[in-house]
Amino acid sequence: MTDPVESGSVPRRNIRLVVSYDGRRFHGWQRQPEPILTVQGCLEQAICRVVGHPVTVNGTGRTDAGVHALGQGANFRTTNLAIPLDSLRRAADSKCPGDIAILSAREAPDDFHASISALGKTYRYRIHVAPAKPAMLAGRVYHCPVPLDVDLMADAAARLVGRHDFRGFASSAEQRQDTRRTIRRCTASAHGDEVHVTVSGDGFLYKMVRNITGTLIEIGRGRWGPERIDLLLASRDRRDGGPTALPGGLYLVSVLYPDGETGVAGGD
Amino acid sequence: MTDPVESGSVPRRNIRLVVSYDGRRFHGWQRQPEPILTVQGCLEQAICRVVGHPVTVNGTGRTDAGVHALGQGANFRTTNLAIPLDSLRRAADSKCPGDIAILSAREAPDDFHASISALGKTYRYRIHVAPAKPAMLAGRVYHCPVPLDVDLMADAAARLVGRHDFRGFASSAEQRQDTRRTIRRCTASAHGDEVHVTVSGDGFLYKMVRNITGTLIEIGRGRWGPERIDLLLASRDRRDGGPTALPGGLYLVSVLYPDGETGVAGGD
Repeated sequence: MTDPVESGSVPRRNIRLVVSYDGRRFHGWQRQPEPILTVQGCLEQAICRVVGHPVTVNGTGRTDAGVHALGQGANFRTTNLAIPLDSLRRAADSKCPGDIAILSAREAPDDFHASISALGKTYRYRIHVAPAKPAMLAGRVYHCPVPLDVDLMADAAARLVGRHDFRGFASSAEQRQDTRRTIRRCTASAHGDEVHVTVSGDGFLYKMVRNITGTLIEIGRGRWGPERIDLLLASRDRRDGGPTALPGGLYLVSVLYPDGETGVAGGD
Repeated sequence: MTDPVESGSVPRRNIRLVVSYDGRRFHGWQRQPEPILTVQGCLEQAICRVVGHPVTVNGTGRTDAGVHALGQGANFRTTNLAIPLDSLRRAADSKCPGDIAILSAREAPDDFHASISALGKTYRYRIHVAPAKPAMLAGRVYHCPVPLDVDLMADAAARLVGRHDFRGFASSAEQRQDTRRTIRRCTASAHGDEVHVTVSGDGFLYKMVRNITGTLIEIGRGRWGPERIDLLLASRDRRDGGPTALPGGLYLVSVLYPDGETGVAGGD
């Protein structure tokens, strides 16, 4: 049976969202059978209660369990033409749990799709460098108890910019054949007690940002020099890289669309 | 039976700690019977495993359930004279759950007591002002969806500085007869999307900072003028104030001792 909302056989609106969430409680973005808690599942339930019919919420990035989002892109279609956008946003936001927020909602052309229409994404990985655990940031940062050489990490990060085969930074579970991607920007910089690794690109392989970060941490600790990146890009062998950094430090910061980026304040 | 460690009948060290915690999972600071999770209980268990005997950890402030600490003061006595302080701190910190951190440990004179020796404390209340819930800050800030007039709040806050009878800001559960306290500093200021209420004083009544904040929020929303504070200080009647602000926005920032403040970076 075809879904009349999704097929477009009834009048409908395509609603575009920017969503933020704390990933700690969730088994990732992607809907799973009850009672497994997912971000997509919670959003779909909340919006269903507001528009009065089941919806499918497409997300730009299928973040893993424990990964956070500051500006996740999403869209859904509704046949409810009556409810004003701001009321819809406010009502759906209030029906989501406290660790999921709907930051904005606006109408989009019918062919807009949060994932297919996206030109790129920016991720940030937060490393907290201090002797003691950061209690207020448990599950939000990776705690590194030893100093990191940020200059070496920045040098290494810059070597990732451009179009490369990132097979060496992909999880062995990566299914896609074409592992070439374009990284527009890759930086490592100090922010108080933290080192932030920020990566913008047209697409990412499975666990790519966490594998990049794990490798940069080893370089920052002095295990390898920055040229380790060149070796990895050439060998395309995951075993040449550092361990996969824990999910809790990773943030989907923003999504780039033809008309601009999801509205999250820049920073580094 | 007298505890030989606490009575001082055996050689012992008095260890002074600075502790930080995310209060969300805990039923407050104060130890309670198992299986109720408390900060004091977790710290005592962790330290016991390191020093090899049961300990009593005194805290400066008995924070309520859901209240956080950036620089809680604490101390305990141990007959373990062998383990170096830094090893003790590191081992006990690693045995605490991720949302409790032991930031520092140093030796103190035998008569030092985290609560009795304290000259004052600084609390901060974080109010997040934005149309959408702050998903990454659930349980860490109070979410206010309407604008606040920070100038009016700052005017009101300044009226609390000095020695006053704060009965009108105390919970009805407050047992102490003398409700006069000295507030050294009380400010309300904007920080990006947040308004911070910061209060430093020699002592605080039960729920006093949350009742001050609840009243300042009503003033910021325009329900009352700043002179409402004068009325409350005069009437000493809790019913003249605003609602008690939720615990999740409150932080014990630092403790003032004769030799300085617990080591937390200042800010506002």
